Amino acid sequence: MTEPRRTRRGARSSRSKTVDVLAKQPPFEQPRMRFDPLRAVSEDELEAIHHASLRVLAETGIDFLDKTARQQLAEAGAEIDGNRVRFSPELVMQLMTTVPEQFTLHGIRPERNLQMGGNAIAVTSVASPPFVTGLGRDRRNGNREDYRNLIKMSQVMNCIHTSAGYPVEPMDLHPSIRHLHATHDMITLSDKPPFVYSISRPRNQDAIEMTRIARGVDHDTMNQETSILSVINTSTPLRYDTVMLHGIQEMSARNQGIVITPFTLAGAMAPITVAGALVLQNAEALAGMAYTQVVKPGAPVIYGGFTSNVDMRSGAPAFGTPEYWKACLVGGQLARRYKVPYRSSNVNASNSVDAQSAYESVISLWGAVMGGVNLLLHGAGWLEGGLLTSYEKMVIDGDILNMVSEMLKPITIDDATLAVEAIAEVGPGGHFFGTSHTQERYTTEHFQPMVSSWKNFESWDEGGRIEAPERATKIAQEMIDAHQEPPMDAQIRAELDEFVERRIAEGGVETDY
Amino acid sequence: MTEPRRTRRGARSSRSKTVDVLAKQPPFEQPRMRFDPLRAVSEDELEAIHHASLRVLAETGIDFLDKTARQQLAEAGAEIDGNRVRFSPELVMQLMTTVPEQFTLHGIRPERNLQMGGNAIAVTSVASPPFVTGLGRDRRNGNREDYRNLIKMSQVMNCIHTSAGYPVEPMDLHPSIRHLHATHDMITLSDKPPFVYSISRPRNQDAIEMTRIARGVDHDTMNQETSILSVINTSTPLRYDTVMLHGIQEMSARNQGIVITPFTLAGAMAPITVAGALVLQNAEALAGMAYTQVVKPGAPVIYGGFTSNVDMRSGAPAFGTPEYWKACLVGGQLARRYKVPYRSSNVNASNSVDAQSAYESVISLWGAVMGGVNLLLHGAGWLEGGLLTSYEKMVIDGDILNMVSEMLKPITIDDATLAVEAIAEVGPGGHFFGTSHTQERYTTEHFQPMVSSWKNFESWDEGGRIEAPERATKIAQEMIDAHQEPPMDAQIRAELDEFVERRIAEGGVETDY
Repeated sequence: MTEPRRTRRGARSSRSKTVDVLAKQPPFEQPRMRFDPLRAVSEDELEAIHHASLRVLAETGIDFLDKTARQQLAEAGAEIDGNRVRFSPELVMQLMTTVPEQFTLHGIRPERNLQMGGNAIAVTSVASPPFVTGLGRDRRNGNREDYRNLIKMSQVMNCIHTSAGYPVEPMDLHPSIRHLHATHDMITLSDKPPFVYSISRPRNQDAIEMTRIARGVDHDTMNQETSILSVINTSTPLRYDTVMLHGIQEMSARNQGIVITPFTLAGAMAPITVAGALVLQNAEALAGMAYTQVVKPGAPVIYGGFTSNVDMRSGAPAFGTPEYWKACLVGGQLARRYKVPYRSSNVNASNSVDAQSAYESVISLWGAVMGGVNLLLHGAGWLEGGLLTSYEKMVIDGDILNMVSEMLKPITIDDATLAVEAIAEVGPGGHFFGTSHTQERYTTEHFQPMVSSWKNFESWDEGGRIEAPERATKIAQEMIDAHQEPPMDAQIRAELDEFVERRIAEGGVETDY
Repeated sequence: MTEPRRTRRGARSSRSKTVDVLAKQPPFEQPRMRFDPLRAVSEDELEAIHHASLRVLAETGIDFLDKTARQQLAEAGAEIDGNRVRFSPELVMQLMTTVPEQFTLHGIRPERNLQMGGNAIAVTSVASPPFVTGLGRDRRNGNREDYRNLIKMSQVMNCIHTSAGYPVEPMDLHPSIRHLHATHDMITLSDKPPFVYSISRPRNQDAIEMTRIARGVDHDTMNQETSILSVINTSTPLRYDTVMLHGIQEMSARNQGIVITPFTLAGAMAPITVAGALVLQNAEALAGMAYTQVVKPGAPVIYGGFTSNVDMRSGAPAFGTPEYWKACLVGGQLARRYKVPYRSSNVNASNSVDAQSAYESVISLWGAVMGGVNLLLHGAGWLEGGLLTSYEKMVIDGDILNMVSEMLKPITIDDATLAVEAIAEVGPGGHFFGTSHTQERYTTEHFQPMVSSWKNFESWDEGGRIEAPERATKIAQEMIDAHQEPPMDAQIRAELDEFVERRIAEGGVETDY
């Protein structure tokens, strides 16, 4: 196998500052959850949430705004009344039996294959904000240049494993062809598994086909190997919109990855209580996951937890709150109850990369990690409740994600690390720096951050009192500069380019505008 | 019992902005750890650390720089060689049998009594920085005005339970009388349990006596009821200095609270490996805790974990790192192994209240809380690796601590909170705001932060883009303005004032300068 160009070029320019920063990155690997996830509710309480969700699906039911979906569900045994679908508890649980507990998400190159589920964690960058800020420029509309920059950063950052959306919306691309350019960028600038929005059937088809071409596999292989994700959001409360159902139909039929994510904001589109919001989240998630199994038994699907609360005075969503944290834990308990991989997020409500953005983020991460997250969406770069992508926050989150990954690694306990001899050698009042025990390990023993400054006040003051976001700007630019396109066979690349050109010539997809 | 003045006055001015902010505070209560603490090492690995520590104490030994201490230890069965004390494993473990698993720390007023140990958490403000910043002023030397302001904030903030040091060093008070004024401020501006530095025997004696007077109890009661804390730091590696040993002698003999805290910086004064630094931490902690039991069997003592790593290029200490986090967890495992309460901290290495200060802090809190902390030192206000107190960080940490406290509370799961009827009432496509289920709960259901802003970008932008630290400045000032001296019997107050006047007239304590 050909050595990737990125690595070779990186080695050639190893003296540059850029590579110094990137050299601090841990290698590309999935963190592993090695603790028992926290249980925020007892087994009995979990069953109470489960049964309440089943009651909602049996008694109130849920609207599926697609005739085909309703027909399929009727054939599977659901009760249909107009748009409304009611599931018996037995039907839901029978359909859930075929959901895979874990699956492989294939990268464009096999080095990027991911385990989805079990104790593995996969992380994505922020997805879908309409606005972007950073690199020395104020908040602006999302555009393709920023989109490409952020894809490059996602490729360079080893803590990002897969895509779960556009890291910012390239709003300067017409919606009819936006997905063609955006997917082309995604799978040529990066070799990590791509993503498609389920906002119309042809978009799903185009993105699946482009992913197949980029991977260099035939249709049968593509239909067996999960290689692309799509997030399906409910229109909370209790409604699956037409395009989302088309997305499930296109994706699940071909064994591609679905992340079902109800956006249950307690006090707005969901009950104000955490328990009630979780009941609604769980009812919607169960209905969607069950439907994937109607489309194709065994199709991979991920349980998305995204319950938070709103500011009851303004209706604005809040993130990284105690309610959010608790919901993260219970979401994980529910996913494990159903034996499906679990999606959570790294989110905050701040408008800038200030202390609030950081503490809300780490509280979110605390909930996600201790909740047993498998797919961490919006892992890096999210601000303003998801409306704004920040280059600086992306770098800072990368540092935090690298730390979390290191936190989850075991502590080596053996005679050498216990260091009884080194302690005896130094003795009372001594210093360990000069010992061979220290010298043998001093470049490798401790985690090296990219952003955190451990300068003392005097040198920080002399250096102009540079705070974390400004340090992150520099690193973001270095990452973009360091980006190299991953290797791709020339014939494959030509086929991919031709596909996009042809589809653009055809006018892309229909839009209303 | 007389209603505290603070509450009455608070009620009278209930329309003011000040009280609005303070009204968001949860009540004064100790958070309870309701999850099993995380185990970062296996039981076998924990025993390996334990046995390695015992080997250090038996083979290398530890210096006790006080003749009385060495004599007491010799009588207890330790082997003495100059300043060096060696403990057999059996002696250490025999002495540890009398350490209380938990104890009551008495407040100046009984409403402030605290449970130390078990699943209870007690939090202190930052302790001992020489510098202070905030309230619109740059970094400056610690002084009494700032000291008093910060004591007032610690009293007003319900998330702060006890003192563990001066929230900033009042450097404008001469060291001979500093402890008299500082303790007087501490026990008149606040009714939470006070603290004394073990930096000379008479200071311990003065502070214990002042606490006894303030509590209005006799000497016998004072000698039975733990009412004041002192932190004993080792001179790592492997040395207890004279004044620290005098502190143990004064405090433990009278059943007052000792927090033994080795400051084991991996790569500097401790082995570079987390395992080795923990072995040294544990050896030093065991020696100190054992000595408290030689002074008085059953004297209350807390196991302090404070292992972190240093920047190996500069020697600067780092905090909130993955190594720090892991050491927090293992520290808790060790404390529980010996059945003693556990101290950890909320720390960071940043020089300003930026994103770094926040993410390092929350990672520290994550480690402390999941490690099973009982006494959280430096809970609010720490910056610059402990050299700098920040008013703004104190407020922000208060918000975070209130969140953590709420996170640890159970989720109410019952028919009302599960909200199946409310979901049925709203149905697909509806909104929950108008339902009686929401309206009955909307002012009380969710946590209300003091600092976090959930404004949308437009209103945040119009308001001048105020970030978290600036919002915190305003709240800090409001807290100081809202402060009321807690009630104290006039005779007690007179006795206290007279004690301080007399001791100042006597010249306070001897100093070298």
